Amino acid sequence: MHELRNHLARITDINHAAAVLEWDQETYMPEGGAASRARQVATLRTLAHELLTSRETERALDAARPETDMDDDLVRIVRRDVKKATRVPSELVNAMSEAQGHAKGAWQKARATNTFRTFAPHLERIVDLSLEHAEALGYEDEPYDALLDIHEPDMKTRDVSATFAALKKELVPFVRDVAQDAASPGKTAPIDIVHGHFPHQAQWEFGLRVARDFGYDLTRGRQDHSAHPFSTTFSIDDVRITTRIDESFFNPGFFGTLHEAGHAMYEQGIDPALERTPLADGTSLGMHESQSRMWENQVGRSLPFWEHYMPAAREAFPGALADVSAEMMYRAVNRVEPSLIRVEADELTYNLHIMLRFELERAMLAGDVAIGDLPSAWNDRMESWLGIRPGTDAEGVLQDIHWSLGALGYFPTYALGNLMSAQLFEAMHRDVPDRDVHIRNGEFAPILAWLRRNVHVWGRRRSAVEILEATCGTGLVAAPWIRYVKAKYTS
Amino acid sequence: MHELRNHLARITDINHAAAVLEWDQETYMPEGGAASRARQVATLRTLAHELLTSRETERALDAARPETDMDDDLVRIVRRDVKKATRVPSELVNAMSEAQGHAKGAWQKARATNTFRTFAPHLERIVDLSLEHAEALGYEDEPYDALLDIHEPDMKTRDVSATFAALKKELVPFVRDVAQDAASPGKTAPIDIVHGHFPHQAQWEFGLRVARDFGYDLTRGRQDHSAHPFSTTFSIDDVRITTRIDESFFNPGFFGTLHEAGHAMYEQGIDPALERTPLADGTSLGMHESQSRMWENQVGRSLPFWEHYMPAAREAFPGALADVSAEMMYRAVNRVEPSLIRVEADELTYNLHIMLRFELERAMLAGDVAIGDLPSAWNDRMESWLGIRPGTDAEGVLQDIHWSLGALGYFPTYALGNLMSAQLFEAMHRDVPDRDVHIRNGEFAPILAWLRRNVHVWGRRRSAVEILEATCGTGLVAAPWIRYVKAKYTS
Repeated sequence: MHELRNHLARITDINHAAAVLEWDQETYMPEGGAASRARQVATLRTLAHELLTSRETERALDAARPETDMDDDLVRIVRRDVKKATRVPSELVNAMSEAQGHAKGAWQKARATNTFRTFAPHLERIVDLSLEHAEALGYEDEPYDALLDIHEPDMKTRDVSATFAALKKELVPFVRDVAQDAASPGKTAPIDIVHGHFPHQAQWEFGLRVARDFGYDLTRGRQDHSAHPFSTTFSIDDVRITTRIDESFFNPGFFGTLHEAGHAMYEQGIDPALERTPLADGTSLGMHESQSRMWENQVGRSLPFWEHYMPAAREAFPGALADVSAEMMYRAVNRVEPSLIRVEADELTYNLHIMLRFELERAMLAGDVAIGDLPSAWNDRMESWLGIRPGTDAEGVLQDIHWSLGALGYFPTYALGNLMSAQLFEAMHRDVPDRDVHIRNGEFAPILAWLRRNVHVWGRRRSAVEILEATCGTGLVAAPWIRYVKAKYTS
Repeated sequence: MHELRNHLARITDINHAAAVLEWDQETYMPEGGAASRARQVATLRTLAHELLTSRETERALDAARPETDMDDDLVRIVRRDVKKATRVPSELVNAMSEAQGHAKGAWQKARATNTFRTFAPHLERIVDLSLEHAEALGYEDEPYDALLDIHEPDMKTRDVSATFAALKKELVPFVRDVAQDAASPGKTAPIDIVHGHFPHQAQWEFGLRVARDFGYDLTRGRQDHSAHPFSTTFSIDDVRITTRIDESFFNPGFFGTLHEAGHAMYEQGIDPALERTPLADGTSLGMHESQSRMWENQVGRSLPFWEHYMPAAREAFPGALADVSAEMMYRAVNRVEPSLIRVEADELTYNLHIMLRFELERAMLAGDVAIGDLPSAWNDRMESWLGIRPGTDAEGVLQDIHWSLGALGYFPTYALGNLMSAQLFEAMHRDVPDRDVHIRNGEFAPILAWLRRNVHVWGRRRSAVEILEATCGTGLVAAPWIRYVKAKYTS
């Protein structure tokens, strides 16, 4: 195992170094550094890929003599990583990277000028290459399986599809009810509570204080500014977040901080024995998102949370929140309003935005929808599910960058994260029955301890589905999330 | 050349990535990240070393068909780098790194408890290994040549020694005169002009403003805080500095910023055609120091400089500098006072601190001084040259970290930098006769342009001595620096 561990340590170090370079790129790098930085990151990523797919890895894997369960997991999962990494021929990698380069520019132009046909041929090419990619990776039922598996290992398209169908059946009428029910907690708060003047420094400190209360360890992490918030890991003992502050709107900065801190606490909680191995990482994007969304929504958008923090919030923002009660704040941060843009969507409608994309991605790959018909397919679903229709493609099918980056199979993980977070939050409640009392008292240690024990510590040793089965007694299901939103949004 | 260029680009990228990681370590890294960061840097540096000394480099060098002078220089200098890198056996590298690990701890303890004998055996070991290192590298006249050559390629110990001897002969009596002459510009300023309250943010902005005026391009650089100021290069288009601010003392922050900006402008001025090669670097530590010291001292501590900036300085520091004239400020920042600690030494006495270390290093390597006699050898020189004697070894032979890091042959480059800066500043004056008028007008472009053309653009293509010969018509000499300080410090 020693040789394998050493070899993997080198690969992991290189990947973490690349992550440092990317973090700097988004936080501090002067504009002039862009071109050389892109080359440096590419050099490191290529090097790590070459090392992972080298004969040395093969030899080290064959020579490894696992003695513990962890050793077994390491050999098993690294073998799978190598297989995935070697299956995609470098010509295809290059073709995809070239197509993405062109598609990204075309998408930007198409969105700016609101002309889908500028983007259409590029999307067509991305879909073709994604199919090639899926064929190279291999799949059981349908090509989409292979793409989903990149981000959500062992999750099957048919299971996602069935879960989403169950969710949609409940959610579409419920969203309609809430939107029409003037007395729903999602409708009754004056929206201008969270709009107003929230000074930069006060937002920064308040968000970070709550993240620290949650258990985000700032001796092993830090917060910086960036245009798009993210979290990133350089080691289990150095996991950072970034935040973007909007002085006129409380939500993006505050809930963004809680969200990214949720991601970061996941990685800070991984078993230190996995350090410098590829297993010291979140097990899937969905499970990662479940952690960020739980702290952001189930905790941060709960009434007990605001009962605890409202005095501090009033002190931090005496101008904007002087007369606001916990109940009012709770309603304000949970306001529901069907809207066109995913990144601005509220907690209740967000999953519908994702499910729409999932359906269309799957249809594109299966050839069930022509690229040219995509805008109307998009708009029809928006209208039927959310009751609103985009006036332009820029606020419809062209709103997201993901497809131009070739990232098909990525979107569903956002909704999977929401569903998983509700499953885990219910399971936690069984083990920690006083959970909401703890939240009301600002005691988050019992929550974090439960997540550590059941989710974080495993790193990639257990898949998302295995974690769900071990904690909730079932794989992915929509019911807990539906119960959660129904309880929250029914007046 | 194409294959060689690609191969070197990869090595350069890895080294620059390591530099980013080291920069982050000193500026933003949370304390918890220290252990894994050290391993990551080691992984990258080892990787770069392995690639440089690999057969691939040999093959690429042999296959290269140089077509330009630059190609010739690249092949020649990389061959030399490879030779140096391969000559030191890895057992010796490991032994040195282990000895340094122990020595650093012992030095810290020795300095804290003021017991040289705690450090002595470690220094003995460092000297032995340095001799082995010198033998492995090879040399012409004496082992010190090999160590000096690491930092100052092509510079010979005998030349340094002769130059230092000439310098000492003039400098020791001159320092005595200045220290006794109450009317000397180095003695007449009340020292409390630069001590007082200089608010952090005002210092930060004022220093950066002057650095920008000098020509430090902040679209290709930036300034951050660190405990020990430094400059670092991630590419020709991303060269950064750090500064440490002391609110009660103007000099460290301000002149530190000018100093580091001088280093940074050197690297920003390298020919872009050298990007991603090992030649995109300063040609020697001495030449690098000549750039930082010139901007810090010849420019930043000149009377014309303060005639230009005094109104802005008064505005930036209305509390501390309201009634201070340019002439007074000029005197305050040039105050001379023989002192025991090198890093606090003034411009005039600094070189004596260096020459003392050079003599002792050379004597240790030659076996001319027993390690046990080092403290008295140190103290005797201090007394005879500067007229003051350390009361403890902590303020004598134990004050610097360098020897515990195994860095023998490094110290002289500080003084070489001072001498070179004066040589270059005189040569520049011949080409830019209005130099001081430009400084008085805050016009630094003619100065920077001259340095770019004659020094920066070459990167490592020309050695320090070659640059001096081309610009000054002579190799290293002390006379220009002596003329400079005599003009400055004679009333």
